[in-house]
Amino acid sequence: MSTTLPGTAPTDEPAAYEPTGRTAPSRSRDRVSYDRDLVHSILDEAYVCHLGFVRGGAPVVLPTLFGRIGERLYVHASTGSGQARAADPGLEVCLTVTHVDGLVLARSAFHHSLNFRSVVVHGTAHRVTDRDELREALDALVDQVVPGRSRDSRPANAKELAATAVLRLDLAEVSAKVRTGGPNDDPEDLGLPYWTGVVPVTPAYGTPIPAETLAPGIAVPEYVTAL
Amino acid sequence: MSTTLPGTAPTDEPAAYEPTGRTAPSRSRDRVSYDRDLVHSILDEAYVCHLGFVRGGAPVVLPTLFGRIGERLYVHASTGSGQARAADPGLEVCLTVTHVDGLVLARSAFHHSLNFRSVVVHGTAHRVTDRDELREALDALVDQVVPGRSRDSRPANAKELAATAVLRLDLAEVSAKVRTGGPNDDPEDLGLPYWTGVVPVTPAYGTPIPAETLAPGIAVPEYVTAL
Repeated sequence: MSTTLPGTAPTDEPAAYEPTGRTAPSRSRDRVSYDRDLVHSILDEAYVCHLGFVRGGAPVVLPTLFGRIGERLYVHASTGSGQARAADPGLEVCLTVTHVDGLVLARSAFHHSLNFRSVVVHGTAHRVTDRDELREALDALVDQVVPGRSRDSRPANAKELAATAVLRLDLAEVSAKVRTGGPNDDPEDLGLPYWTGVVPVTPAYGTPIPAETLAPGIAVPEYVTAL
Repeated sequence: MSTTLPGTAPTDEPAAYEPTGRTAPSRSRDRVSYDRDLVHSILDEAYVCHLGFVRGGAPVVLPTLFGRIGERLYVHASTGSGQARAADPGLEVCLTVTHVDGLVLARSAFHHSLNFRSVVVHGTAHRVTDRDELREALDALVDQVVPGRSRDSRPANAKELAATAVLRLDLAEVSAKVRTGGPNDDPEDLGLPYWTGVVPVTPAYGTPIPAETLAPGIAVPEYVTAL
């Protein structure tokens, strides 16, 4: 979401995140970026992130709804999985978002690849306890799924807010990785008789299916048809 | 991929994976499944998995190509990220695959959700060192991207095999999670004036883009147009 909380000052932020030992590329340096706008755009196009944390010494990776407000990510935590409990005083997480943009078919099996855009965020997640921040976070989660939807649904009431665990993760240790373009076959393979190129992949939205309980006369909203 | 290695005997396998402390549901029990065919179908539809491991005590989650042969997953490891080095004698991983099938718009912000299918695999990954197994794993990785492609491309040569790090992860501690259907609004919200329903999401394939170096006369293969 491109909205910013009152009080944050996005204009003061540098155009790129600072690399760290964890976000510096170990290979494919040309594919890595710290550009803030690029990171935001990759995050904002996603419905789910994959949230990694350590439980009992072992890694756990769960798909999770998330939303963005400025430089903060809000993650819908499963109250049962231990994430929410562990987030006080703080839970070390790695949050990853990936879009596949194309299937890259090279002549050699070795050079097959995907065109993709991904963001990896490292940091300590904290459970949101402030009621106003929680309310804004829930709106951001809804608007991440369908931009504009939070204003056209019933806001969470006190009981729902109390039943919701949301973790906040600041965008500080962040990197993006992007692969674009065609296959990178070796020169000696260029004469091989195999088709080679890229098959583009995009998410497609089907015709909205109204709930059985939808009252007659309520049209599909513009923010849905605009998807 | 639905192919099985000669020597494996899928008919001997029980129809479901055994739940463990890590794969038993902490909530939404009705959405969790251990059904082997369901797990396979979710895995086989994916291009990438999200592989989690622990590095320096902190979680790392990276998007990674993978393939399946029977009850084994093969994961393309980044030689630079420490995965490949750490996989001898074994790397504790959590491998997760997620498909988003629909945006679920409830009348209340609280009940917004996604329809999805996910698989979470826990286990110890080992680097593949056997040359024949590595060759089969690379074919599986290619066929995961486009089924049938490995037979229509140049197989990896000795140099490429040596340059490739592949981890094997057996399907043993596995669970699937599936949400389908419409929104679950509370009875007292059914009269609210908001549109409610599901927006289906599917991956769409665009027109294949031939590589600039493609020789004239090589048609787009059937296994690509069939996507």
